[in-house]
Amino acid sequence: MELKDIAAKIREFRDERDWAQFHNPKDMAIAISIEASELLEHFLWKTPEEVESRIEAKRSEIESEIADIGIYLTELSDNLGIDLLAAMERKIAVNEAKYPAKQVKGSSKKYSEYPESHGGES
Amino acid sequence: MELKDIAAKIREFRDERDWAQFHNPKDMAIAISIEASELLEHFLWKTPEEVESRIEAKRSEIESEIADIGIYLTELSDNLGIDLLAAMERKIAVNEAKYPAKQVKGSSKKYSEYPESHGGES
Amino acid sequence: MELKDIAAKIREFRDERDWAQFHNPKDMAIAISIEASELLEHFLWKTPEEVESRIEAKRSEIESEIADIGIYLTELSDNLGIDLLAAMERKIAVNEAKYPAKQVKGSSKKYSEYPESHGGES
Amino acid sequence: MELKDIAAKIREFRDERDWAQFHNPKDMAIAISIEASELLEHFLWKTPEEVESRIEAKRSEIESEIADIGIYLTELSDNLGIDLLAAMERKIAVNEAKYPAKQVKGSSKKYSEYPESHGGES
Repeated sequence: MELKDIAAKIREFRDERDWAQFHNPKDMAIAISIEASELLEHFLWKTPEEVESRIEAKRSEIESEIADIGIYLTELSDNLGIDLLAAMERKIAVNEAKYPAKQVKGSSKKYSEYPESHGGES
Repeated sequence: MELKDIAAKIREFRDERDWAQFHNPKDMAIAISIEASELLEHFLWKTPEEVESRIEAKRSEIESEIADIGIYLTELSDNLGIDLLAAMERKIAVNEAKYPAKQVKGSSKKYSEYPESHGGES
Repeated sequence: MELKDIAAKIREFRDERDWAQFHNPKDMAIAISIEASELLEHFLWKTPEEVESRIEAKRSEIESEIADIGIYLTELSDNLGIDLLAAMERKIAVNEAKYPAKQVKGSSKKYSEYPESHGGES
Repeated sequence: MELKDIAAKIREFRDERDWAQFHNPKDMAIAISIEASELLEHFLWKTPEEVESRIEAKRSEIESEIADIGIYLTELSDNLGIDLLAAMERKIAVNEAKYPAKQVKGSSKKYSEYPESHGGES
């Protein structure tokens, strides 16, 4: 299955339930944020070692939180007419230009000075 | 391009910069949460109509935030050995069993009573 | 009881349990973010009218989420040697200068153009 | 200044700008979540040592983010008729009953097993 097939399945799931009426962009973004928080909660108060143990012990729950984020993100993209894979590819290209490998490689100290490093725009 | 190609590109991007050392699961989950919040910020204080205008006016910024979430989510899944598409497919199946279409269809009032509706597990 | 008395109670609660070891600033900030998300979850998918009903129906749960955020925020401030009330007072003064009442009053359309309005700095 | 004086100042600030119309509970909760994320962003990708350096280097920005959360939380409580200090005091009492000091003290391993430890209810 490819992402576009998953997107179709999500659309079908939603429409069989007549839930498009609730899935406006603002609530979808809230939902993504809440799911991201539920994923993060697995690692709260934990050392790197405890994080590893948690991942082993709660693999299916963590996978389920990750899937929730993916499902909402895919549906939101679909609703907005955004090709998620193409958007990701474009953003990787932007990041490549913004953080030239030669300049930033191994620069561990500097890394944490980038506002959000290669992930984001403020 | 398929998601697995994007995942490979992300890995390559990261490794050329020697950034795997920072990308532990806890910080990856924090990053996803922060990016989700930046997406949400576009819609803060806005009515449904203003949300629509915002999406038109800031389409590329919004697309970029969505891409950021997708990139971190794809890398985290990859790092944890989780097949993101398969996980999403499984979760959709779980949701189908949990929210039978016949029972919940059109039930707009009830919808908001489901803790997180078809999105999540608490 | 004043905020400084609450801060003292929180410190006492924590130290009787020997929990200061877990309460580093990064995890405290994660905890605040997770609690904020739990508060927000009460309003997910809801119209303004449904939000009002939710507040009536779940007043004590909502109050409890708000208290959680307040408790972590108070402890974090205390741990960092920040006088939370003084910091709030200073920030209100900053916002007063940044958003002159005469200029922004009633400007409902403009309001949503301010990045985060009087709340934040990006 | 006490918290109730700050609450009065916030109310005055808001009303001079005619901003109550935007400050519905759902958007207030979104705003708190976004501000919490901005606080957290200061610590993203950082080791405990780097977090300490960051706090020194960016003390006033971090204080400002903390103040933002406090301001929105105070206003939301005020809007909902919730006495924030009393709510915090009640929640501390709840946590004292839930996590008896004798039982949980020093139990560092166990701590991370509590869903959100003394902070929250799911």
